[in-house]
Amino acid sequence: MGENDRLAGEMNAAFDAHGIFVVNVLGAPGAGKTTSIIHIIQNLKSGNAAVIEGDIESDIDAQKLEKLGIPTQQINTQGACHLDAPVIAQASYGLSLKDGSLLFIENVGNLVCPAEFYIGEHVKMLVLTVTEGSDKPYKYPLAFEKADVFLLNKCDLLPYVDFDEAYFMKGVRALNKAAPLFKVSGRNGQGFGEVAKWIEQRRSPK
Amino acid sequence: MGENDRLAGEMNAAFDAHGIFVVNVLGAPGAGKTTSIIHIIQNLKSGNAAVIEGDIESDIDAQKLEKLGIPTQQINTQGACHLDAPVIAQASYGLSLKDGSLLFIENVGNLVCPAEFYIGEHVKMLVLTVTEGSDKPYKYPLAFEKADVFLLNKCDLLPYVDFDEAYFMKGVRALNKAAPLFKVSGRNGQGFGEVAKWIEQRRSPK
Repeated sequence: MGENDRLAGEMNAAFDAHGIFVVNVLGAPGAGKTTSIIHIIQNLKSGNAAVIEGDIESDIDAQKLEKLGIPTQQINTQGACHLDAPVIAQASYGLSLKDGSLLFIENVGNLVCPAEFYIGEHVKMLVLTVTEGSDKPYKYPLAFEKADVFLLNKCDLLPYVDFDEAYFMKGVRALNKAAPLFKVSGRNGQGFGEVAKWIEQRRSPK
Repeated sequence: MGENDRLAGEMNAAFDAHGIFVVNVLGAPGAGKTTSIIHIIQNLKSGNAAVIEGDIESDIDAQKLEKLGIPTQQINTQGACHLDAPVIAQASYGLSLKDGSLLFIENVGNLVCPAEFYIGEHVKMLVLTVTEGSDKPYKYPLAFEKADVFLLNKCDLLPYVDFDEAYFMKGVRALNKAAPLFKVSGRNGQGFGEVAKWIEQRRSPK
């Protein structure tokens, strides 16, 4: 873990030297991480976004992104439940990132292990959904503590599920007072303009 | 891992000696594992069901079960992403299981790590949802390969999501030809009678 953090720190410095801003995207399987990344990129004012796709197996998400002309590097972890700094170092070379890029790293779908690993990112984005239920902060606290921004996805399904928003937000704020939360819908695109604005602001604060 | 499997094998033999049938319940965070366990228990013809609840933190699910009069032992893994044989051995003592019990072990919400660990169970039940998307078999193959039975939960939301059932089933059957799949809804209870019947049949085949 010490070795991972040392390498991640070096990568963060290298990203900074090239003006590359890195977002580590975390969430449970099926939370809508890829769809969220696509919507955010389509809402950005600046260009040059790229994605590293982390999956146990398959290149389904990378194919989706490449069809949209978004430069993508697939990582298959072959069973590993998270990404770590060495695999990101290697994948970053593979992407030949342009200076000034915005790099999204989609982590393995998992609310536990990825939260423990720093991979050189500037912000951790945690994607949650109203279909997962409102008790997630209480059960998976580390991911909530470490997040810099929350997306609450699938809000188009709110009328059809029993999501207790007050209970959810109480749990979120007990763990994390500062990170903003954006309500979004990957299905209809609602809310991602605000997320893109937040990233651009965080990247280049006035 | 060898030590884990040895202990799990011993526990399986001890469960058999006491006529205890054990179901290891796997699924992503928010898949509806606890709700499924409750519905199944309420549909069983035989009594004496008990539950071991595995969570990183919190006892929210154990409280739900105890309110319904279901004997429950909570395990908090304090960060660990799965249950293993030693913690189940300990929790089983805590429950003082009656001979002939049906024991559900709800694993940590995670589609990756829990699939790798045998914990003395007779069957692995994998809970999936239509809201997670239809690509899960392709991305998390090990859990699908190892499952003895699949629940496809949240089917009440099918009209509101883009779930490609044919693509999903193609992925499931490429990995696992034999395990039955039951469509269920934790929200309205639909389908759990069939699941309870399957468990009772699997437990005492004619």
